[in-house]
Amino acid sequence: MAMTVKLVVLYAQPDDPDAFDKHYLGTHMPLVDGLPGLQRAETGKLVTALDGGEKTFYRIAELYFADSDALGAAFGSDAGKATAADYQAIAPPGSRMFIEALDD
Amino acid sequence: MAMTVKLVVLYAQPDDPDAFDKHYLGTHMPLVDGLPGLQRAETGKLVTALDGGEKTFYRIAELYFADSDALGAAFGSDAGKATAADYQAIAPPGSRMFIEALDD
Repeated sequence: MAMTVKLVVLYAQPDDPDAFDKHYLGTHMPLVDGLPGLQRAETGKLVTALDGGEKTFYRIAELYFADSDALGAAFGSDAGKATAADYQAIAPPGSRMFIEALDD
Repeated sequence: MAMTVKLVVLYAQPDDPDAFDKHYLGTHMPLVDGLPGLQRAETGKLVTALDGGEKTFYRIAELYFADSDALGAAFGSDAGKATAADYQAIAPPGSRMFIEALDD
């Protein structure tokens, strides 16, 4: 069944936010943009914890694919492996990664 | 400065997922759709924790507004207060709510 899926990454707070953003925007996002089958990528900083709780996460990234097969194929590709390796290098401990199945 | 913002809600796992979804889709989303200034709403279930960690969150909801003033105005409205009250009624303990400032 074709159902749009997103890879949702919640980046934990980095020790050095400026250095993180420089690498994220200058190196990581170009890798993301090279993923085969990527429909759309959206990212931004979590500026406020509206629930009054901890600012557990620093940044969210969301990568849209046509379906879970397309997502799997993207990360099975050489570009996907390079992207995943870079993620492992930069993601602060406590970062989370989920697959979301979008509602209609 | 005008910068698209999102209200990002991470719903923790509900005790009764079917009952939660029924309320969420049948009652909560119609309230959300009535928010003044809402540009787009997107929601879906987090089906897999790709990092091998806990499935901490059940569902994600993202509400797009033109800027933080528009978001604030939406939740200052009667429709916004009704939406916030319904959120308080249904959000499982541990749910999180953030404001995200989207990158260009």
